[in-house]
Amino acid sequence: MSRFLSKRYKSLEVYVPGEQPRDRQYIKLNTNESPYPPSPLVIERVNSAEVSDLRLYSDPECTSLRQRLAEFYGFSISNIFVSNGSDEILSFAFMAFCDGNKGIAFPDITYGFYPVYGDLYGIKCDIIPLNDDYNIDCSEYYGIGKNIVIANPNAPTGISIGQDEIEKMLETNPENIVIIDEAYVDFGGRSCVDMVKKYDNLLVVRTFSKSRSLAGARLGYAIANEEIIKDLNKIKYSTNPYNINRLSLVAGEAAVEDEQYFEDCCKKIIKTRGYTTEKLREIGFEVLPSDANFIFARHPLFSGEYFYKKLKEAGILVRYFNKERLYGFVRISIGTPAQMDALISEASKIVSEQK
Amino acid sequence: MSRFLSKRYKSLEVYVPGEQPRDRQYIKLNTNESPYPPSPLVIERVNSAEVSDLRLYSDPECTSLRQRLAEFYGFSISNIFVSNGSDEILSFAFMAFCDGNKGIAFPDITYGFYPVYGDLYGIKCDIIPLNDDYNIDCSEYYGIGKNIVIANPNAPTGISIGQDEIEKMLETNPENIVIIDEAYVDFGGRSCVDMVKKYDNLLVVRTFSKSRSLAGARLGYAIANEEIIKDLNKIKYSTNPYNINRLSLVAGEAAVEDEQYFEDCCKKIIKTRGYTTEKLREIGFEVLPSDANFIFARHPLFSGEYFYKKLKEAGILVRYFNKERLYGFVRISIGTPAQMDALISEASKIVSEQK
Repeated sequence: MSRFLSKRYKSLEVYVPGEQPRDRQYIKLNTNESPYPPSPLVIERVNSAEVSDLRLYSDPECTSLRQRLAEFYGFSISNIFVSNGSDEILSFAFMAFCDGNKGIAFPDITYGFYPVYGDLYGIKCDIIPLNDDYNIDCSEYYGIGKNIVIANPNAPTGISIGQDEIEKMLETNPENIVIIDEAYVDFGGRSCVDMVKKYDNLLVVRTFSKSRSLAGARLGYAIANEEIIKDLNKIKYSTNPYNINRLSLVAGEAAVEDEQYFEDCCKKIIKTRGYTTEKLREIGFEVLPSDANFIFARHPLFSGEYFYKKLKEAGILVRYFNKERLYGFVRISIGTPAQMDALISEASKIVSEQK
Repeated sequence: MSRFLSKRYKSLEVYVPGEQPRDRQYIKLNTNESPYPPSPLVIERVNSAEVSDLRLYSDPECTSLRQRLAEFYGFSISNIFVSNGSDEILSFAFMAFCDGNKGIAFPDITYGFYPVYGDLYGIKCDIIPLNDDYNIDCSEYYGIGKNIVIANPNAPTGISIGQDEIEKMLETNPENIVIIDEAYVDFGGRSCVDMVKKYDNLLVVRTFSKSRSLAGARLGYAIANEEIIKDLNKIKYSTNPYNINRLSLVAGEAAVEDEQYFEDCCKKIIKTRGYTTEKLREIGFEVLPSDANFIFARHPLFSGEYFYKKLKEAGILVRYFNKERLYGFVRISIGTPAQMDALISEASKIVSEQK
C-alpha cells in the first residue's frame, strides 16, 4: 500500500478469484467455465479481418450486440446493457443505487463479491443467513425496504428460488431495486427476465461466461426497465465508455445467434451434472440440489480442504471455501463426462482411504 | 433516470466520446485512431485456437503481458499494471488517491474525462488555465500540495511539456501523486517512465490504442512504484478482477514484441503530421506545435464548428469542441498521406469559398 491511498480503502478486503495455476495441466473444475468451446460461429466470425480492424475503437453503445440480445429475449434495445463481464454490472449497480443511506440485503452464503462491493462503496450490507438446508429464506426479504441482490441459482450452493418468491420481493419493495444475478440460470433455473415488463425495480444480470462458453471474452449483460439502464449508462459514461473490446462484441453476437449450439451445451451439462450427482451420492457424498453448472458437495469423512488437496495432487482442481458453515463442502464445476469420470474415480479412492 | 439512482449522481455530466456514425463511410480523423492496422504478428497470434480458448477465463494477473512490458521498459513486473483501456486506470487512480479531502489539479483545456472522474467521485478539482499560447503553465503546479494529472502531450492541443518541469512537479509535491498521461507520447514527446525509478509519487499512464493500433482491443497500462501498483490492484480486485479479455492480452503481447512495426508506424505518422501541418499553414491555418497523432488547428475566417460541418458534408470527420477558448479549433487525427491529401484539398476549397 502506498502512502497516497485514500484512508477509506485501508482495510478493504478484495475479492479472491479461483486459482489459475500454471505449474501443470489440471482437469479444471474450479471456476465454473464451460468444458465446451464457444460456438463454431464465434470461431468463424472472430477472424483476421476483425483482428485487423482492432485499430478502430469499438462501438461504445454496443448497438449490434444489444439488438441481438433484445431480439433473443423479446425486449427493446433500450432495456439492454452490456458490460465487461457481469461483475462490471454488479459494481455499477452497487455504485448507482446504493449509498450511505440506502443499504442492500443479501444472503450470508452467496457470491463472494457482494460484500466486497459493499465495503468498497461504503454501503451498509444486511446479511441474512441461509436456512439450515442452505436455502434462501425469501420471506426475510419481503418488504425489507432495502435494495436486494440474489444470485439465482445461488452460488456456491447451486440452489434456485422460485418465480413467486422473486415476484413477492419485487412487489413488497417497490422503492428499492431487486437485482437477480442469473449467471447460472441457463442450467435448469427459471429466468425472471419477463418480469422486467411488469416491475420497474427489477434488474436482471446475466453473463456469456458459463452457458455461452465465453468466460475469456468478458461479456455480461443486464435486462431492466430503460430508466435503470440509463442509470447504468451514466456510470459507464463516467468511468469507461468503451468498456467492451471489438472482438468480444463480435463473439457475443455470434454466440447469441447460434441458439442450437447454446441449448445443446446446456443440455449436455445438465445431463452430466445428474450423472455426477448420482455417482457421488452412491459413495456417500451429500450433494445439494443444483440448477447450476456446478455442484456443491460434502462427505461426512473429511473436510472440503482435505478433499480439495487430495484432488489437486491427482491433477483435478475444485474450489473449497474457508468460511463458517462451508468447511465440509467443495464446489465442483461440471466438465465433460470423461472429466467427471476422472473426478468420481479419484473421489472413490479418497473415500476408500478413509475407511 | 430511475427513481432509484443515488442522489449524488443526479447532476453528473458524463463524458461524450467522439461520434461513430454509421450512416456512410467517412475518412475518420475524429478519434485519434491509427490509420495502420495492428502488427502482422497480432493478426497471426489472435487465431482460431485462441478464440476457441475463450471458454476459459483470462489470467486476472495478466502475468505474460506485464512481463513483456516490464522487459520492454526495463522495469520489474511489480511496476506494471494493465487495464481495460487507459481510462480504467485513470478512473481507478482518481478513486484510489483522491477523496473529499485530497483534491486534484489539472489544466482547463485537457482530456475531457478528468473533470468527469472528479465529479463522479466527489473530488475537488483545481482547474488551472493554460497560457494564452495554449501551453501548460507548469510553475502553477510546483508545490501545489494536491494530486496532479497532466496529459503529456496535452489533448486536444498536442503540445508537450519538458522533462525538467515534470521532475519539478514530482520534487515539490512529494506527498501527492503526479499522474502523467502519456497516451500520445510515442509520436514525438519524451516519456518520463524512467523517473519512476527515482520518484515514488509518479504514475505514468499509457495506452495501446494509438501508437500500437489497438484502440478496439481496449488495453492500457501504468508504470509506477510497486506500492502504487498494489493500490490500483486493490481497486481492480474490488470491482472487476478479470478486467481484460484473453484475446486483447494476446494482441497486446504480440504488439509489444513487434518493436520494428511499432516504430515504423510512429515514424510514418510523425512524417505525415509534418506534411499536413505545413500544407494547412500555407492556406492560412494556425496549427499548434503537436507531438501527438493529431493536430489542433484553426483558421481566422471560420469557426471550428463550421469547418467540421463542411468537412463532414465532404465525407471527412474531425472533432470540434464547444468550449470557451476552443471555438475556432478543430482536432484532426493524422491518417494516411492519401487521407490527409483529401483533407487538405477539402480545406483549401472551404478557405477559397470564404474569400
